[in-house]
Amino acid sequence: MIYTRTVELRGHLIDQGIFARVLDDINEYSGDYVIERLDVGQTHTEESYSQIRVTAESEAQVQRIVMRLQTHGANPLEPGSASYRPAPADGVFPEDFYSTTNFDTRVRVDGRSVDVDNPEMDCGIILSDDKNRAWTLPVSDVREGELVVCGSSGIEVLPLKDDRSDQGDFEFMTSIASSEKPQALQVKQIAQQMREVKERGEKILWVGGPAIVHTGAAPALEALIEEGYVDVIFAGNALAAHDIESAVYGTSLGVDLSHGHGVPHGHEHHIRAINKIRACGSIAEAVESGVLRQGIMHSMVKQGKEFVLVGSVRDDGPLPDVHTDVIDGQRAMRAALPGVGFAIMVATMLHSIATGNLLPAKVPLVSVDINPATVTKLADRGSAQATGVITDIGLFCEQLAAELVVGYKRD
Amino acid sequence: MIYTRTVELRGHLIDQGIFARVLDDINEYSGDYVIERLDVGQTHTEESYSQIRVTAESEAQVQRIVMRLQTHGANPLEPGSASYRPAPADGVFPEDFYSTTNFDTRVRVDGRSVDVDNPEMDCGIILSDDKNRAWTLPVSDVREGELVVCGSSGIEVLPLKDDRSDQGDFEFMTSIASSEKPQALQVKQIAQQMREVKERGEKILWVGGPAIVHTGAAPALEALIEEGYVDVIFAGNALAAHDIESAVYGTSLGVDLSHGHGVPHGHEHHIRAINKIRACGSIAEAVESGVLRQGIMHSMVKQGKEFVLVGSVRDDGPLPDVHTDVIDGQRAMRAALPGVGFAIMVATMLHSIATGNLLPAKVPLVSVDINPATVTKLADRGSAQATGVITDIGLFCEQLAAELVVGYKRD
Amino acid sequence: MIYTRTVELRGHLIDQGIFARVLDDINEYSGDYVIERLDVGQTHTEESYSQIRVTAESEAQVQRIVMRLQTHGANPLEPGSASYRPAPADGVFPEDFYSTTNFDTRVRVDGRSVDVDNPEMDCGIILSDDKNRAWTLPVSDVREGELVVCGSSGIEVLPLKDDRSDQGDFEFMTSIASSEKPQALQVKQIAQQMREVKERGEKILWVGGPAIVHTGAAPALEALIEEGYVDVIFAGNALAAHDIESAVYGTSLGVDLSHGHGVPHGHEHHIRAINKIRACGSIAEAVESGVLRQGIMHSMVKQGKEFVLVGSVRDDGPLPDVHTDVIDGQRAMRAALPGVGFAIMVATMLHSIATGNLLPAKVPLVSVDINPATVTKLADRGSAQATGVITDIGLFCEQLAAELVVGYKRD
Amino acid sequence: MIYTRTVELRGHLIDQGIFARVLDDINEYSGDYVIERLDVGQTHTEESYSQIRVTAESEAQVQRIVMRLQTHGANPLEPGSASYRPAPADGVFPEDFYSTTNFDTRVRVDGRSVDVDNPEMDCGIILSDDKNRAWTLPVSDVREGELVVCGSSGIEVLPLKDDRSDQGDFEFMTSIASSEKPQALQVKQIAQQMREVKERGEKILWVGGPAIVHTGAAPALEALIEEGYVDVIFAGNALAAHDIESAVYGTSLGVDLSHGHGVPHGHEHHIRAINKIRACGSIAEAVESGVLRQGIMHSMVKQGKEFVLVGSVRDDGPLPDVHTDVIDGQRAMRAALPGVGFAIMVATMLHSIATGNLLPAKVPLVSVDINPATVTKLADRGSAQATGVITDIGLFCEQLAAELVVGYKRD
Repeated sequence: MIYTRTVELRGHLIDQGIFARVLDDINEYSGDYVIERLDVGQTHTEESYSQIRVTAESEAQVQRIVMRLQTHGANPLEPGSASYRPAPADGVFPEDFYSTTNFDTRVRVDGRSVDVDNPEMDCGIILSDDKNRAWTLPVSDVREGELVVCGSSGIEVLPLKDDRSDQGDFEFMTSIASSEKPQALQVKQIAQQMREVKERGEKILWVGGPAIVHTGAAPALEALIEEGYVDVIFAGNALAAHDIESAVYGTSLGVDLSHGHGVPHGHEHHIRAINKIRACGSIAEAVESGVLRQGIMHSMVKQGKEFVLVGSVRDDGPLPDVHTDVIDGQRAMRAALPGVGFAIMVATMLHSIATGNLLPAKVPLVSVDINPATVTKLADRGSAQATGVITDIGLFCEQLAAELVVGYKRD
Repeated sequence: MIYTRTVELRGHLIDQGIFARVLDDINEYSGDYVIERLDVGQTHTEESYSQIRVTAESEAQVQRIVMRLQTHGANPLEPGSASYRPAPADGVFPEDFYSTTNFDTRVRVDGRSVDVDNPEMDCGIILSDDKNRAWTLPVSDVREGELVVCGSSGIEVLPLKDDRSDQGDFEFMTSIASSEKPQALQVKQIAQQMREVKERGEKILWVGGPAIVHTGAAPALEALIEEGYVDVIFAGNALAAHDIESAVYGTSLGVDLSHGHGVPHGHEHHIRAINKIRACGSIAEAVESGVLRQGIMHSMVKQGKEFVLVGSVRDDGPLPDVHTDVIDGQRAMRAALPGVGFAIMVATMLHSIATGNLLPAKVPLVSVDINPATVTKLADRGSAQATGVITDIGLFCEQLAAELVVGYKRD
Repeated sequence: MIYTRTVELRGHLIDQGIFARVLDDINEYSGDYVIERLDVGQTHTEESYSQIRVTAESEAQVQRIVMRLQTHGANPLEPGSASYRPAPADGVFPEDFYSTTNFDTRVRVDGRSVDVDNPEMDCGIILSDDKNRAWTLPVSDVREGELVVCGSSGIEVLPLKDDRSDQGDFEFMTSIASSEKPQALQVKQIAQQMREVKERGEKILWVGGPAIVHTGAAPALEALIEEGYVDVIFAGNALAAHDIESAVYGTSLGVDLSHGHGVPHGHEHHIRAINKIRACGSIAEAVESGVLRQGIMHSMVKQGKEFVLVGSVRDDGPLPDVHTDVIDGQRAMRAALPGVGFAIMVATMLHSIATGNLLPAKVPLVSVDINPATVTKLADRGSAQATGVITDIGLFCEQLAAELVVGYKRD
Repeated sequence: MIYTRTVELRGHLIDQGIFARVLDDINEYSGDYVIERLDVGQTHTEESYSQIRVTAESEAQVQRIVMRLQTHGANPLEPGSASYRPAPADGVFPEDFYSTTNFDTRVRVDGRSVDVDNPEMDCGIILSDDKNRAWTLPVSDVREGELVVCGSSGIEVLPLKDDRSDQGDFEFMTSIASSEKPQALQVKQIAQQMREVKERGEKILWVGGPAIVHTGAAPALEALIEEGYVDVIFAGNALAAHDIESAVYGTSLGVDLSHGHGVPHGHEHHIRAINKIRACGSIAEAVESGVLRQGIMHSMVKQGKEFVLVGSVRDDGPLPDVHTDVIDGQRAMRAALPGVGFAIMVATMLHSIATGNLLPAKVPLVSVDINPATVTKLADRGSAQATGVITDIGLFCEQLAAELVVGYKRD
């Protein structure tokens, strides 16, 4: 059995995103909809009008959806009459109490329409004994026996009058990236995408910053390289230099990632590591001659995978493999793109945006960073394909390796 | 004279916000529109289709708008044929070159339709001499005489196929709060809103955190109180305690705001200041007895304005005026809301959200903080009336006082 | 065999933290030291002077330590004479080249002292053929055969003249919390601390915010509760309300944590969940009557563990167990502290600081948050016992459960 | 008259920074000191011991300093005997009550030494009537007549036992950059430094990011250029391209900084602006030919000042003046450094760090950004000369221009 209710809404539905939010909320509350009518204001000064038929699997559910939609100014086409019941105890509402919005609200009761005083969100609506007055009340303040409006029948929420001139030229913010997401799940979803990409025979592109090394994620990334989940790396001098520094000096001088000391800034290990590779001629030659024996770059060379390192003005050295001319570097990156079916960008704003500039829109990309600004800047380039994950780089790579590499276990 | 072009677009226009972005962009590029047709997919699996007539004041402008809309997958109804001209020099495109999107693109030239190789944004489209091939090229790589597509005629941008299952359950981020706005202008706009509120005889509510004191903004706020731009303050124990601490100990113990030392944390001045006011009985009695002679709270008492201080679990003391029961505190805040026509929330997430919970949707509110998270959390409560300003609290209050208070000049 | 070198340094060593950084660096580079002399300036205008004997296990290592200490203005007591060797190739320094600081530097060569032109960090020092001139050069610019200073002998780094008046009243920033740490290791260390606390028979206190629920960490925390690693929880209304909302409505209404949708803000589920518990009388009664069957609060009740919920001004409801009077709440928190031997604070600034205010300094505490500000604010209270971990809450709790709970595996 | 007290402290004073904090606090509380004795532990396992004579201008002040120092574990050499007085009212301590630390504490009273129960910070110490017991109490819980310890005599604070093994390998965070500073004052101090630099005939170097343009600060910067406060600019392609885009398209296409709309990302104006300058040959030629008539770059050319633009991998175009080879770019930056006496870095992490790498330590530098991470990363390079200001770029430049340029007034 299907339960339905038709709601109507009016206003600047399209250009303020209200319509999209209404449809989203119906889906999120497990309902479904049919847009029965949509009269769009033809110009940007005209209002739009719509009727939407909402369906759900129970009467309680359809009522909850309608209550939710009222927060956007949508009201039932046939409001009906409000039902009400006494509060069962001090500080307790009836189970199905109507939960208020912060919009002006009217309640139809006993054939009349009563304005609700003091609009405030997340309250109940109390009726006077004679039903001539109605007001909001927080749950803590209700007394046993007070009449509380229940369900969504008979409630009319009045949308804000559109007073655009009043808003000045401010912009509205409608959405944010959030670190308050279940990240363990996101890791699984990314792992699944990577498996599908590999099954389709496409390449996985990693774009990375030096925090991969600083957060101890290099061993996880090495495992992913060996398992075939890293086909191309785009990075700067710093990722490679710190990876090589860690491989070469990791245990000899006390700056020891395995004991949790932070990486001191400004010390000279990285410049020595760079000099050592310069003396070899290239990273590949350093691997061949046995100077470089572990780490991300070592694994890439060993697995015969491609990497493009492009320099920046802050570079020391740089490593001999680095393109010091950035336009040359862009050309090298372009040349490595054919066949890429998925891009993951970890802990680098500069190289992520650079890669985003070059990537066709059809390549899905995931941006992973502990800093929300990096993730949103990338997503903000207007491509629908960007997904953001705000999380800890080290733990993210650990979990991704644990998902994708059988038997992966960090010591 | 009005220049027009009609574009069409197809896809999940409404629930992915594409339609809203198209209309926004037309406005932003100073164009206008008439929605000539909008066939909305009735259910969430059906695609929508629309035709929009774009108008602008010059042919060049209408062409730029169309190019812009193509980044959303909108194409001219009658694409026409592409025009092209040779690059005037190495590394230079013709003035009116077509600037690419990162979507798959086709160009109609000499009666045929040619796929553009290597979709990449912000490039030009180069045609082979026989017009049988077309590819993107960055401006740095163009050679003098190569044929470059100009204007927007004859270009077709192919929207992404809607492959929702591929997207997994990730959410899209569509917008961000940004600190990259011209803030000096925003201050002027807020000042203007405040003047209008006062002219309408309504109250201005300030909700503030202790950073107002730490950033040296107290003198600016005092000037605003004296000029009548602060009718009610909602805050916690900390704002009042640090304000009073600064008023009482500001110069005697060396913790001197006027010399730019930071406020040391954990020292005992604030607890002594609180004890002193507790001994007086209340802030008002401390003003009356001459114990408290300057500062924000002093000005509020002197001007006979209302403040509601509500406690939190981290409070020391607290001051005798603080509501230690938070539900009592909420009741006191509610009682102070009638007549409020504008709310400004500065440097406090806790009290901003608390106030947002109580405020009717029709009261415009501005949230000001240096931390984007505070601003977006508040805006995220779903009310269209929230505006965010990400800026420095101290400089913001300085400039607001300079706008509103004649002769205001910080020493 | 032990290699040694004695360095001297002079200046405002103590109050600018230079001395501490010198000792830190010796340890970090696996050396050891004996402070042979320390003449402390008795007043804050006098300079100090010290001689430190550095020891290490190889001559190369002791040279590297000395080079490092020169970045702080420490120089060998007997500078000796500089050695130099020709660059082996274009763009390559000799292996043991001296890596420069950005301080003014002098090099002793052939019995003379030569000023090094253009101080710049991370460069080499080149000598003219006649040894009358010396200048810095980045590795990329060196030509084969140019004379490069090697080792640390004969180098003198000139500390900055102390010109305090020039610095105005700015404060120096000397350290930061960083997300660029190997977090997997930190999780292991915290797990080890928790095991030791349990072995000593002491309690583990958790202080938590609602992001624990939003990030999907509740199952991990439940496993930790059942394994005995959570003796007391301090939190606000929000943690408990969202945990209960998730337990009660988790699967029925489509707001489904198990599919990765974010938690919509402002919807009414939490207020319904709160009302339901209010109707039961308390969380414990809701567990007993079968209304509440899973989640963090459920596990705490089932295991007979204590929780203290203290309200805040932004609360809806609140839950019947919440102390609405914050001073009462502080008293309840104090009463739960005896026996606590370790405190972990996750994703809450308000309750973390509140708990920090009450805790004796001898109880070690760890603050875990994705937002560096929370971690640093807590550490900033001046207690040496605070440790900060900047990471993703969800992944952190996952990994902690995987460390501590045998057989823990998230589905 | 001078009042004195000698305190002693013992422990790992140097390498944990305790000693430095003690001296800092004495200065901050307007006291002075003589270090009468400092026995430094010669090796990193030995403890140190010190006696410091504190002086101040009143007995009350010297007592407050001693109370403050006790939070670091420093105690008076001759503790004396505690004085105490009854609480004057419920919830009120005597004016000079002793404010507790969170360390274990002992109080000497009537010839005996009594342990204080429940160490908690910011409380008072209550004595039982027979003086056999002492405990902490928050001010809210004191009753009239209870005996409260006053002053600092007779108090002994027990420093934490040094149990380093327990701390594992975590690092301590000892300081943070804070946005909670009086920024209006910092602007004045920077302005004063700039005036002094000009008087000495030295150059002022600006290093800037594109947010200078986005935040509307370009007119302020132009005024500063014309007034002679900008001798050299280091930047990337983006600052110059957005400045020129704003100068060329500022009013013609509706993306209008003067009305407060944000700058849309990804649109094609910047690439057109770049193409236009490429067609001219260089920025200087664009100024000469009248194509470029306002903005930052225009002012630099008109005033004959030097700028060095260095490319990055994310660049579009780039402008013809941009060094696309980053090592070439570094050389050009080095060549512009002689004569620079002050560097200010605004809203760019990449170019700030790049410049920091090149600058001699003796050149003072200020880093200004709304993002604390940028400021701390720069400061973290180990140079004592870096100062950070966390503030809004737009308002900062406005105020700096108002300080330095007579008659500067933004329309």
